[in-house]
Amino acid sequence: MTLTDHPAPRSQAITSRTSVLNGTRELGWQTREVPAPGPHEVRVRVRRVGVCGSDVHYYTHGRIGPFVVQAPLVLGHEVMGVVEAVGEGVTRVRAGDRVALEPGFPCRRCAYCKRGEYNLCPHMTFMATPPVDGALSEYVLWPDDFVFPLPGSVSDDAGALLEPLAVGLWAARKGGVEPGDSVAVFGAGPIGCTTIQAAKAAGATTIIAVDLEDFRLDLARRVGATHTLNARHQDVLAVLRELTRRDLPLSHAGVDVAFETAGSLPTTRLTLAAPRPGGRAVLVGLPPDPEVSLDIVSAASREVTLRGVFRYANCYPAAIELVASGAVDLDALVTHRYAFDQTPGAFAFADHEKKTSMKVMIDVG
Amino acid sequence: MTLTDHPAPRSQAITSRTSVLNGTRELGWQTREVPAPGPHEVRVRVRRVGVCGSDVHYYTHGRIGPFVVQAPLVLGHEVMGVVEAVGEGVTRVRAGDRVALEPGFPCRRCAYCKRGEYNLCPHMTFMATPPVDGALSEYVLWPDDFVFPLPGSVSDDAGALLEPLAVGLWAARKGGVEPGDSVAVFGAGPIGCTTIQAAKAAGATTIIAVDLEDFRLDLARRVGATHTLNARHQDVLAVLRELTRRDLPLSHAGVDVAFETAGSLPTTRLTLAAPRPGGRAVLVGLPPDPEVSLDIVSAASREVTLRGVFRYANCYPAAIELVASGAVDLDALVTHRYAFDQTPGAFAFADHEKKTSMKVMIDVG
Amino acid sequence: MTLTDHPAPRSQAITSRTSVLNGTRELGWQTREVPAPGPHEVRVRVRRVGVCGSDVHYYTHGRIGPFVVQAPLVLGHEVMGVVEAVGEGVTRVRAGDRVALEPGFPCRRCAYCKRGEYNLCPHMTFMATPPVDGALSEYVLWPDDFVFPLPGSVSDDAGALLEPLAVGLWAARKGGVEPGDSVAVFGAGPIGCTTIQAAKAAGATTIIAVDLEDFRLDLARRVGATHTLNARHQDVLAVLRELTRRDLPLSHAGVDVAFETAGSLPTTRLTLAAPRPGGRAVLVGLPPDPEVSLDIVSAASREVTLRGVFRYANCYPAAIELVASGAVDLDALVTHRYAFDQTPGAFAFADHEKKTSMKVMIDVG
Amino acid sequence: MTLTDHPAPRSQAITSRTSVLNGTRELGWQTREVPAPGPHEVRVRVRRVGVCGSDVHYYTHGRIGPFVVQAPLVLGHEVMGVVEAVGEGVTRVRAGDRVALEPGFPCRRCAYCKRGEYNLCPHMTFMATPPVDGALSEYVLWPDDFVFPLPGSVSDDAGALLEPLAVGLWAARKGGVEPGDSVAVFGAGPIGCTTIQAAKAAGATTIIAVDLEDFRLDLARRVGATHTLNARHQDVLAVLRELTRRDLPLSHAGVDVAFETAGSLPTTRLTLAAPRPGGRAVLVGLPPDPEVSLDIVSAASREVTLRGVFRYANCYPAAIELVASGAVDLDALVTHRYAFDQTPGAFAFADHEKKTSMKVMIDVG
Repeated sequence: MTLTDHPAPRSQAITSRTSVLNGTRELGWQTREVPAPGPHEVRVRVRRVGVCGSDVHYYTHGRIGPFVVQAPLVLGHEVMGVVEAVGEGVTRVRAGDRVALEPGFPCRRCAYCKRGEYNLCPHMTFMATPPVDGALSEYVLWPDDFVFPLPGSVSDDAGALLEPLAVGLWAARKGGVEPGDSVAVFGAGPIGCTTIQAAKAAGATTIIAVDLEDFRLDLARRVGATHTLNARHQDVLAVLRELTRRDLPLSHAGVDVAFETAGSLPTTRLTLAAPRPGGRAVLVGLPPDPEVSLDIVSAASREVTLRGVFRYANCYPAAIELVASGAVDLDALVTHRYAFDQTPGAFAFADHEKKTSMKVMIDVG
Repeated sequence: MTLTDHPAPRSQAITSRTSVLNGTRELGWQTREVPAPGPHEVRVRVRRVGVCGSDVHYYTHGRIGPFVVQAPLVLGHEVMGVVEAVGEGVTRVRAGDRVALEPGFPCRRCAYCKRGEYNLCPHMTFMATPPVDGALSEYVLWPDDFVFPLPGSVSDDAGALLEPLAVGLWAARKGGVEPGDSVAVFGAGPIGCTTIQAAKAAGATTIIAVDLEDFRLDLARRVGATHTLNARHQDVLAVLRELTRRDLPLSHAGVDVAFETAGSLPTTRLTLAAPRPGGRAVLVGLPPDPEVSLDIVSAASREVTLRGVFRYANCYPAAIELVASGAVDLDALVTHRYAFDQTPGAFAFADHEKKTSMKVMIDVG
Repeated sequence: MTLTDHPAPRSQAITSRTSVLNGTRELGWQTREVPAPGPHEVRVRVRRVGVCGSDVHYYTHGRIGPFVVQAPLVLGHEVMGVVEAVGEGVTRVRAGDRVALEPGFPCRRCAYCKRGEYNLCPHMTFMATPPVDGALSEYVLWPDDFVFPLPGSVSDDAGALLEPLAVGLWAARKGGVEPGDSVAVFGAGPIGCTTIQAAKAAGATTIIAVDLEDFRLDLARRVGATHTLNARHQDVLAVLRELTRRDLPLSHAGVDVAFETAGSLPTTRLTLAAPRPGGRAVLVGLPPDPEVSLDIVSAASREVTLRGVFRYANCYPAAIELVASGAVDLDALVTHRYAFDQTPGAFAFADHEKKTSMKVMIDVG
Repeated sequence: MTLTDHPAPRSQAITSRTSVLNGTRELGWQTREVPAPGPHEVRVRVRRVGVCGSDVHYYTHGRIGPFVVQAPLVLGHEVMGVVEAVGEGVTRVRAGDRVALEPGFPCRRCAYCKRGEYNLCPHMTFMATPPVDGALSEYVLWPDDFVFPLPGSVSDDAGALLEPLAVGLWAARKGGVEPGDSVAVFGAGPIGCTTIQAAKAAGATTIIAVDLEDFRLDLARRVGATHTLNARHQDVLAVLRELTRRDLPLSHAGVDVAFETAGSLPTTRLTLAAPRPGGRAVLVGLPPDPEVSLDIVSAASREVTLRGVFRYANCYPAAIELVASGAVDLDALVTHRYAFDQTPGAFAFADHEKKTSMKVMIDVG
């Protein structure tokens, strides 16, 4: 690693070997040109890109809801690298710094941005969301205010996985998790696990993970779940209520906060049923069909607050602190690793081996 | 009005002519005995009882969800009267005081009560909710901490209607209405109107009332709606979005807060669709069937917060202030009036004339 | 007024007659050049500038705390005008639009800006705060995201006075004013009056204004105060407690929220003493000396929350809504008016006639 | 331990050997009679009582502010024991249960109690606060809603120390500590340490403890402080700012939340100076003199929120969860232990050995 006060000369573009999605399940390669960084821009040599469920979904289905792949599309938005060059006015980082990239940047000028709700900005530029390209490339250019230097105690892998941790932190914030709370997390994939980690960091003391796969539940327990339920074999609501009943009638049992991270109809329904009166239900995942039949009457009568989350805002600084301090262990989530050249194999694996893998990491450089 | 420092002697019970529901659409009379007030109890000579939609529903259907009438049941929970006698330890009121009764009192000892969320107390005693009797009686006995003295500027009718105003205030609080906000209120019945009044009191400047009846919309406008939409003739969502679009893309149009007060499936769906990204949807009414098919995906992706409300907590003091100061005019809601003897006629009318009436008031004494 | 889709050609600068502060109590004139608007910039023909206490303080003292006038300085930050030309990418307004200018713009990139707390941005550019020039000039150039189009129902004067209203709204937000609350406002100058207006808009029903001048108290009552106390003649705390006592012991009397807007030591002390246990105290003004002897023990034991306010963030949209809807009447605050040529006279007047004037308005063009 | 469903017969009072404060530094003994528990009451055989700074202050000074000892007074309000008998209607606990006692109970009926702010109830009954007796006695009678059963994983000592942990939790709540926050805790005595533990449980990752004694700082580090500063040798503010500066100007360095727990003037001043703009300052301790000279101007200009705390509300359930789950280790705070017979010696020691002791625990039975 070379630390230097002299950024690369402004005028030089650079070539970047890039993985591109050419069609359903068709990943190929391109050489692209990445321009020199302009004012407040940073050019980063990518080191790690985590494979996210949404990347795999574009790979297998060519779309997510209204977002349709316009080939060739670069995937990857969980990204860590090293600053290669900085543009004018950049003071937060300099060449040689290890950094994480928050993968979306907003317009900075609309009412949402001004209020700090930049994740809802109508003019968001978000990596690997058509038509915006992602980070599975040797180099990327990014605005400096969404580039975060990493302390030495945050590993390269963890730097990339700050992104799913940001999702978990946002979910925990929206759910208002407080010390001593009980939470249920439906789905124990990568987002379920980072939600567990975020809830634990916020002080939850009863953390119930629910999934269909023991492999995932075992990992959930390692990263903070205090109880795990396999929904194939257990009556989830009955157990939840028994665990949270305390000295109130059964009508008032339930967790303080329930999180949906599996994106299925049954778990969406459970998420609404799981909270105690006055509790919160947070939808991190979304069911596959927009119309969902829900027992909204029971939830509303119990004054359960239902919140959706859309990405996150202002979570990277806290995510870095939590990992750097050791409160959250993101490295535990990496179960498989591929070299950049093997990117097509990484996606094929991630597509087929959900039951036996957690996070697939691509080592870009 | 007789003011006295000497409460009636403790040992005397009193007889009270009482309207009772004997069966579906069967209202009869009983003479009941109301005991002398014990410690921290107040005996009130009832003056006014407003007829609420839930009273009419028990009258016509014999039940509301899990609550089944155990005849004879006394209806009525919007209640104002004059203190007739007070028990030991009562200092808030004395005989002769005009008072409103908050119609439910909690256990005061459970975790919900201690946190101030007493509306969710599992041991609630709530008037006119089987098996608890209501206030359509000459006298009622009630705990002093749920009895509120009325300033002279609050009329007898308004004293009774603090109850539906409390519902509106609770809804506005749960919706987080702030100065300058835009709100939509679906349903312009009594609860819709008090929600409008509460939203206006909290500073909402665009208040869009939606109903199927022009009679109700006209009244809604008189109590604060700035726009009224008749859903029979207008494309409600299109108009809402036009009214709230400002300088953002159409995807980001919508009200800050939407309130459902009609208790129907279409309005529940509209309530979820009406808020802007980051807005709030509050269910004050509930659809008739528990299972509701909702576009939860769109709402969650827009980070709309959905909250149900169940009665209210800590709203009477503010309700009294708002009426006493002139900020809210509850008298405007009373469209029809019946003497106590005509109680059966009042219910028959309220049942059939929803399109041409707002609040039916019974003059008990 | 000429509405046009064709902005003025980019390359033309324009000359602008400008009032400048050359030294203590020395106001002169300059002709300055205002460049054509660049991307996301708007050039505005100024119409109205309100004279603020801070303008007068720079005029009389040459500094406010660490901010020292570097002559020549242009004063004025309460500003309304008409868009004369817009730069590339501007879509919110077009030439001919009547607009208010929010007088400070932040860096949009730091952690404070991202969280929506842009008033605390360390890189703020704020009008009439050395070394940044204000708006007492025929033309000003300003970023489009801090330019707000005005509805026809907002007068030119009111457009300029959105700025002090934004201060009042921010104070009311920080104080958490809710419907039915009681508030005390110490100082009934322009900021005191807009705080009263904001508190009323947020639903406060008891609004107690305290000042030394009956002229100001009379105006305070006209814009929303329900009670006025002249501190020369009345025992302010005793009256406050009597007005707010209700059914609790005297130890628990007090307002829900107290606001300091006078910037004096005695009112700062009163602001801390006025709230009930659990109430809030908001410092809008600041005492002249940094070190203040306060009874912090009593305030802390009563769990009073003390908050300072520094300018405001995200208040202009709500301010416009409140004025446009008629909820707030800013025109009532203008007591004196000067033509642009008479700017020196306007400042001389504002300096000497505080007891008999509220807001002095300069009609720039 | 004998578990039984048959509580002791109602009519029997019981004698209880009791430590009483007869005058300054004069502790003696009495035999008192503790009546059989009435409805919703519990009689507890006391096991552990922690010695609190306020107990020692009554012992040495005979008063705390307005509260003057009326001898004989029973001290002790950090209390754990075993249920010996329960009155009618008690369902939360039964004879034989190990329990902690929350040492204050409110009126349950006033506006504060209804809102859940029962710590501010004007009719509070709080142990060891004149004229209310504390728990240094073999038996105490207490209302069941302020008696909390203890899981087996909470030791007897920890059961007593839930009280200071409740103070720390309340402080952390009032300070709004969130995951990733930086906090400073001034004073590393028992309350400082439980504040550190509560802040850590809420996710604080930088926890800076400041004290004059290395003994206390060492213990602070053991229970969660990430940095310790001895104010005798270090420029506290300079170090704080260096530790929290990140990529903003020095003006914007500072902790997210500062806590005062030492009760001194210098630490009160530091607490106001330590937070970053927009941060929070929480006064858990109070300076000895009510009038404090503070740089309120700087704090207010930085929009620092200053909050006092008075005891706590609704903290015991979370405190128990945190200890039971292992997130907080209260046993680490006990440095010295005395038998009940040695109570006078325990107080003499606690009075003189502040520099070398943390928590003195009395083993009552």
